[in-house]
Amino acid sequence: MSLLVVGSVAFDSVKTPFGQVEGVLGGSATYFSLAASYFTDVNLVAVVGEDFTDEHMRIFDNRQIDLRGLQRCPGKTFRWRGEYGFDLNEAHTLETQLNVLSSFRPELPADYRQCEYLFLANIDPDIQREVMAQVEKPKLIACDTMDFWIKSKPESLKKTLASVDLLVVNEGEARELGQEANLVKAANKILSWGPTSLIIKRGEYGALLFGNSSIFSAPAYPLEFIYDPTGAGDSFAGGVMGYLASTQNHSDAGIRRAIIFGSVMASYNVEAFSLERLRNLSYKDIETRFREFKRLTHFDEI
Amino acid sequence: MSLLVVGSVAFDSVKTPFGQVEGVLGGSATYFSLAASYFTDVNLVAVVGEDFTDEHMRIFDNRQIDLRGLQRCPGKTFRWRGEYGFDLNEAHTLETQLNVLSSFRPELPADYRQCEYLFLANIDPDIQREVMAQVEKPKLIACDTMDFWIKSKPESLKKTLASVDLLVVNEGEARELGQEANLVKAANKILSWGPTSLIIKRGEYGALLFGNSSIFSAPAYPLEFIYDPTGAGDSFAGGVMGYLASTQNHSDAGIRRAIIFGSVMASYNVEAFSLERLRNLSYKDIETRFREFKRLTHFDEI
Repeated sequence: MSLLVVGSVAFDSVKTPFGQVEGVLGGSATYFSLAASYFTDVNLVAVVGEDFTDEHMRIFDNRQIDLRGLQRCPGKTFRWRGEYGFDLNEAHTLETQLNVLSSFRPELPADYRQCEYLFLANIDPDIQREVMAQVEKPKLIACDTMDFWIKSKPESLKKTLASVDLLVVNEGEARELGQEANLVKAANKILSWGPTSLIIKRGEYGALLFGNSSIFSAPAYPLEFIYDPTGAGDSFAGGVMGYLASTQNHSDAGIRRAIIFGSVMASYNVEAFSLERLRNLSYKDIETRFREFKRLTHFDEI
Repeated sequence: MSLLVVGSVAFDSVKTPFGQVEGVLGGSATYFSLAASYFTDVNLVAVVGEDFTDEHMRIFDNRQIDLRGLQRCPGKTFRWRGEYGFDLNEAHTLETQLNVLSSFRPELPADYRQCEYLFLANIDPDIQREVMAQVEKPKLIACDTMDFWIKSKPESLKKTLASVDLLVVNEGEARELGQEANLVKAANKILSWGPTSLIIKRGEYGALLFGNSSIFSAPAYPLEFIYDPTGAGDSFAGGVMGYLASTQNHSDAGIRRAIIFGSVMASYNVEAFSLERLRNLSYKDIETRFREFKRLTHFDEI
């Protein structure tokens, strides 16, 4: 089943204690679509500028990601510059140039309107609803958001959430959105606004799934070498949605497994800068690490 | 199999966003022994002052904890005053009065020297070794420590670790002890100094076990109401060691289960101030929550 993602394509400049890169391909839709492409067909909607080259295009082509929804506009592609200290959980943004992203209004190509799985990456909640309105019979809609929208457009965001099945946010965002320090309380409040499932990303601590009747706790894979956490959350979401679209199983058991596949993709992504690891995986690598997650969490019943 | 704990008995004054208590029974050996008492016989070695009353004694008696190793000295019992903000992971110490603890030299009663399971709570590593020297044929020795000893007595602490089977510390302590920001690297370094197993406590994020050949990640139980995190780490260690002493199974599978029992005890402990929850559990409560941990972490194989 094909999966549609609407988000950003960016050029990132990233410095971590283990190295740095300048102007490399990044952005939420990029990480998401590469991760999801191991599980299902992916259609990408985003905007780039004149500095987006055939070489960048090839990274998507090699993973058979459909770029008919990629708009090219006069000007420069969105750019982000950030730095991480030894606490790799927190990115320090040094510079953001919205460029062509500032006037982005996603228009879905006709074919894309039949997509049944939709992921709305972190963009303006008004635009998230405009996209939803263009999709004809969605089976599952998931979205991300960020503190900026939670603070500046809380009512618009709540309207978006009312039409979304699955919200994927990080821990701080969940607390801020739910206005509760306690994560269980924050989650229950968020679920009361519409989504049937909420996934809370906790970086190196894994992820929590809150559903109607159960909570699932997934660990992160303990890595000895983490080079660049950029895109971990989007790779995670790509694994989750890619797996859900491929199986069409939205049961609690299905989402739990999807979260482990998401965690696998995120764990590979952080092992190298930019997309270096994510673009060169095999499905066998993914299955191997899935089984390692099973060993990592296994304990005998009583 | 009986279990010996050497640590502190204290009077705590604690304030959290959910209430406060003054001069209530606490201390590492107290929380540890109450938690462990649900699994095995516990012998306690600690020191108290003249302000320790029969009423305090009864809390231990009700759980059949052997207090022949509890020294009573002239003066006042160790006192700790602390506060927690909404981030319940971090205690802010407002006052510490060592009192009788400052001159504590543990002397094991003759019977205690045959104890096969020993837990050395967070005390001076020199004294930890003095205690180990008094135990005749230990089957498993575990210890805790803290940043104060890591900074002030690193060489003594390493000598202690060389004779210990299991080290139980929190995440910050593991990083500081191993002098590595990366937890896997820190763990490997610590294991190279002697312990065969290392448990890293991560508060609301659960715990990690590093053994010779595998890593185990245990979640914390997501609670909607957490009143007082004081003693969570010691209740956890009490559950771990109590279960290990009761089963005498030190295999990887045995320690994994022990960690879940430890997590169960910690999760109950934080549901009330002081020992209110921990002193009134049934073994059925413990089994029920153990099964909830299984559901919390379960996902299907591929």
